[in-house]
Amino acid sequence: MELEECLKARRDTRHFLPDPVPQQVLNKALAAAHMAPSVGLSEPWRFVSVESAENRTFIKKLFNEARQKAQKQVADEQDEARSDLHQSLKLEAILDAPVGLAVFCELPSENYTIGVIGTPQTLMWSVACAIQNLWLSLTDQGYGAGWVSILDFEQLKKELDVPEAWLPLGYLCIGKPATDYDKKPMLQNQGWKQRTPEPIVLKR
Amino acid sequence: MELEECLKARRDTRHFLPDPVPQQVLNKALAAAHMAPSVGLSEPWRFVSVESAENRTFIKKLFNEARQKAQKQVADEQDEARSDLHQSLKLEAILDAPVGLAVFCELPSENYTIGVIGTPQTLMWSVACAIQNLWLSLTDQGYGAGWVSILDFEQLKKELDVPEAWLPLGYLCIGKPATDYDKKPMLQNQGWKQRTPEPIVLKR
Repeated sequence: MELEECLKARRDTRHFLPDPVPQQVLNKALAAAHMAPSVGLSEPWRFVSVESAENRTFIKKLFNEARQKAQKQVADEQDEARSDLHQSLKLEAILDAPVGLAVFCELPSENYTIGVIGTPQTLMWSVACAIQNLWLSLTDQGYGAGWVSILDFEQLKKELDVPEAWLPLGYLCIGKPATDYDKKPMLQNQGWKQRTPEPIVLKR
Repeated sequence: MELEECLKARRDTRHFLPDPVPQQVLNKALAAAHMAPSVGLSEPWRFVSVESAENRTFIKKLFNEARQKAQKQVADEQDEARSDLHQSLKLEAILDAPVGLAVFCELPSENYTIGVIGTPQTLMWSVACAIQNLWLSLTDQGYGAGWVSILDFEQLKKELDVPEAWLPLGYLCIGKPATDYDKKPMLQNQGWKQRTPEPIVLKR
């Protein structure tokens, strides 16, 4: 797929077909992630393929708990229609997506990494770029992903028993999309929020 | 360009030709950035085109100061050859790249944004995805970018006089690449660090 077509086609997908994701598709997407830029060539991205039913169920429970808190926040705004709309949105596919991939950033063990002097968050931004590469590659191959961040990250980390130096960025639900949401972001398609026509650019 | 070719060709570029970057190239790249995923459809990316010689000179000074600190850190490791190599690396093109674009994340003014309950850093990760889209689009169009984070971010923000709610992610040097670094990351090409062959993936 041409780059521009791929950028346009990529969606944050919450509705998947049950079709399995071939390992070669996943490997190609992970190889794309590994081509991302990284601060000081740190390559800090780490992936955990969540396969056990027990772990999936636990992560779904984490989502439910966080979502309940979020729902309360929305309800507090006293707009009933908006609260109902929020309640109706499908914001994850933890149990129904064929592949679940938790994503982490490993803090470097080396004393010095070029480029992190501004802030160590640069390392997490490298991982975000890797996620975007992975997402584009899945789109290019006819698959999709949804990034779930409505989770208690500390509990996610504990459950998956990863090294202490790994910081979580979230959980990706991966599979074949059941819909393209009429070629719009799902939240726009479902009336939650509109896109802005263009990015804000100042001159200085 | 096909997606995969574009992912492979993208480089963190520090060496540019003096050729100007046509506005339409930049606009297309900014439109690509605006197609990035964003948590809760927040679209938090903000760009500042740094055009005045005064601002460029100030940002170069910020870089020089931060780099000096970094050089001291490397020197403290007492490996002279490594310290010399670090000193020799060109890590920015603030005064020589035809376009300079500072990138920020605006914290939302709305009370509630879907998906930030795990951590407000999700907003910055959306901006990192936008930067990756912009970078890929520039690559696709025959241009390139280098992400500079060796800067005091607070001073960068102050100098560019942006709203309080904008958090800096760095400064992009943009132009036509003078080299492809032998199709490798520059830091690998110059012997600073090797790439790892593949990403780390655990199963749980």
